[in-house]
Amino acid sequence: MTSPDGERPRTASTVGPVRVVGTGLLGASVGLALRNHGVPVQLADPSRTALALARDVGAGQPARDGDPEPALVVVAAPPDVVAQVVAAELVAHPQAVVTDVASVKGYVLAELRAAGVDLRRYVGSHPMAGRERSGPSAAVPDLFVGRPWVIVDPGEADAQALLAVRALAVDLGAVPVAMGAAEHDAAVATVSHVPQLVSTLVAGRLRDAAPGALGLAGQGLRDVTRIAASDPALWTTILAANSAAVHRELVALRAELDVVVAALAAADEADGPETVAPGALGALARTLAAGNAGVARIPGKHGGTQRTYALVSVLVPDSPGSLAALLAQIGEAGVNLEDLDLEHAAGRPVGIANVSVLPESAEHLEQVLTEHGWKVVR
Amino acid sequence: MTSPDGERPRTASTVGPVRVVGTGLLGASVGLALRNHGVPVQLADPSRTALALARDVGAGQPARDGDPEPALVVVAAPPDVVAQVVAAELVAHPQAVVTDVASVKGYVLAELRAAGVDLRRYVGSHPMAGRERSGPSAAVPDLFVGRPWVIVDPGEADAQALLAVRALAVDLGAVPVAMGAAEHDAAVATVSHVPQLVSTLVAGRLRDAAPGALGLAGQGLRDVTRIAASDPALWTTILAANSAAVHRELVALRAELDVVVAALAAADEADGPETVAPGALGALARTLAAGNAGVARIPGKHGGTQRTYALVSVLVPDSPGSLAALLAQIGEAGVNLEDLDLEHAAGRPVGIANVSVLPESAEHLEQVLTEHGWKVVR
Repeated sequence: MTSPDGERPRTASTVGPVRVVGTGLLGASVGLALRNHGVPVQLADPSRTALALARDVGAGQPARDGDPEPALVVVAAPPDVVAQVVAAELVAHPQAVVTDVASVKGYVLAELRAAGVDLRRYVGSHPMAGRERSGPSAAVPDLFVGRPWVIVDPGEADAQALLAVRALAVDLGAVPVAMGAAEHDAAVATVSHVPQLVSTLVAGRLRDAAPGALGLAGQGLRDVTRIAASDPALWTTILAANSAAVHRELVALRAELDVVVAALAAADEADGPETVAPGALGALARTLAAGNAGVARIPGKHGGTQRTYALVSVLVPDSPGSLAALLAQIGEAGVNLEDLDLEHAAGRPVGIANVSVLPESAEHLEQVLTEHGWKVVR
Repeated sequence: MTSPDGERPRTASTVGPVRVVGTGLLGASVGLALRNHGVPVQLADPSRTALALARDVGAGQPARDGDPEPALVVVAAPPDVVAQVVAAELVAHPQAVVTDVASVKGYVLAELRAAGVDLRRYVGSHPMAGRERSGPSAAVPDLFVGRPWVIVDPGEADAQALLAVRALAVDLGAVPVAMGAAEHDAAVATVSHVPQLVSTLVAGRLRDAAPGALGLAGQGLRDVTRIAASDPALWTTILAANSAAVHRELVALRAELDVVVAALAAADEADGPETVAPGALGALARTLAAGNAGVARIPGKHGGTQRTYALVSVLVPDSPGSLAALLAQIGEAGVNLEDLDLEHAAGRPVGIANVSVLPESAEHLEQVLTEHGWKVVR
């Protein structure tokens, strides 16, 4: 069914037209998802290439003079220019609700306040979504599906403005989460920015490592350093924008690092375990136990309280189709795969697939796999 | 074909009997793998439960008076008692080659030297293998397959002793890597012990985080903190045993952390990007770029130089069999899956499977998947 003006029928609560300013990964994905719902999207970007690419992936049409006034403006500009773009859009579109999707919220609000901007039509937001690739060509309409979408009410926003941004998040399949700006910035410092920096620091130390040392690298190092491959320019901007919260959190982490460094120094000075200064080994053990307690607080796959899955480990030859055959077998057994982790065997064509399943399914699964000739590792 | 004494025919170069002292995960796995090759294995462990379990999983027979003298002794005791067990075994079995599998090598050697032990029949080793589960019940004969197995010649070892330990590694499917003790200990400090501590410290900070903050956790945090769930008692012993190298490495990391802390403090004191002290943002960017350079040095899956795979991302409903169906499709397309990473969508029954394949296979695979109705995310 097509409406008279050629638009697909609207299936969203969001009232258009929606103007998207900045057509990188996030902006183009917002446009793409809204177009799939039949909402008209006007695109703007200082880069003509980014703009043309976004149009070509189906994210909307470049904004033109004479376009109808937008009901909602989504600012998806680089973090360091977001506040000035938001201020300009509020002026240029005096009927529109304006939101931004920057990953730091406090400094945007502070800059808008410092400029004396009326904030009744502004609501900040931060969809917790991203991909390893960037730019409009990496845009996908499903980017936000199931992800938290933080909505920051500056305090002055109209109820209707809050509603419009919430509707956008829901239309894009995200889960709206209301938070204050400071609360948000402290949260992302802890769960995103500090882990990024620490991963970066560990990876940075590998520059000086002997080639032989790197040959001993295992899955643990790979996991810890995966995000160290992130874009330095983007992250410099993010860290600078959230410098207060990241600094505070990093200073707290350094204090705990100092405890470990002191304990190791004490252990190093001793001749053996018997002569280590009292408390040094206890400090190490307490730090390690605190890490256990912290990691246990991370919510599980579906955003709820972390659930403990049973692990079934199976040997898999490294040949086309063998992992597929294993997972087909798991599917035939009627068991849902909750998570899958592959252990790679350096230099050998065999690996272990660690299959996470609900504890009540594990025994049945092990039995079915063994019956079908799979080698379950116990 | 069974030999007259009921043993399976030998398919290994290792000359038995082999005596395994300490029947936890590593010791029992060594026994199990050797038994699969028909090599007689004598087991010893101060814990009668661990000994009985190791026997029951097929790792060998408990050592008894009147057993033939072992040709090789493998000490798989906890790190803090390894040296004294090695010394005792060298005395008790004056014809045998003795090795240990402790994850730190320098302190074992130092303790043996301090005790005046003759080291001609001793060669240290460290198989880079492990599992999330421990104890003899987690033992698997394939534990060492494709893993590096570090062999440390103390300098005094007989050629025949070195050969025996090398043969053991090869028989168990591992890749022997010759290293000095100090070189090994520095390497594991960099690629294993410091990443463990840093993961632990990041996870430890989550204890104080607001529940709402944890709801924003993404895959990055999960990856960085996965190994923070490791056993505190075991890791306290490992870190104490390698305190010198870990301390040195951690002090170097702290110096780079201090640069970041200072840069963030400078950024925080400024009113905006224009007024940040000169050099502060540059320092952040340099640190992030160094992380890029470091992570790029980690060797790829099969122990060779890191190979860049192409990533094909596909939407997968979270229902039994759907990932299996995807991987079956990949297998049918004749494409080998090099790695697989699942992105979980909080609260929604859909996820993204990031499939790594050889770059030359990516386009063909995307085409086949799309033809069969899969949603390839570009």
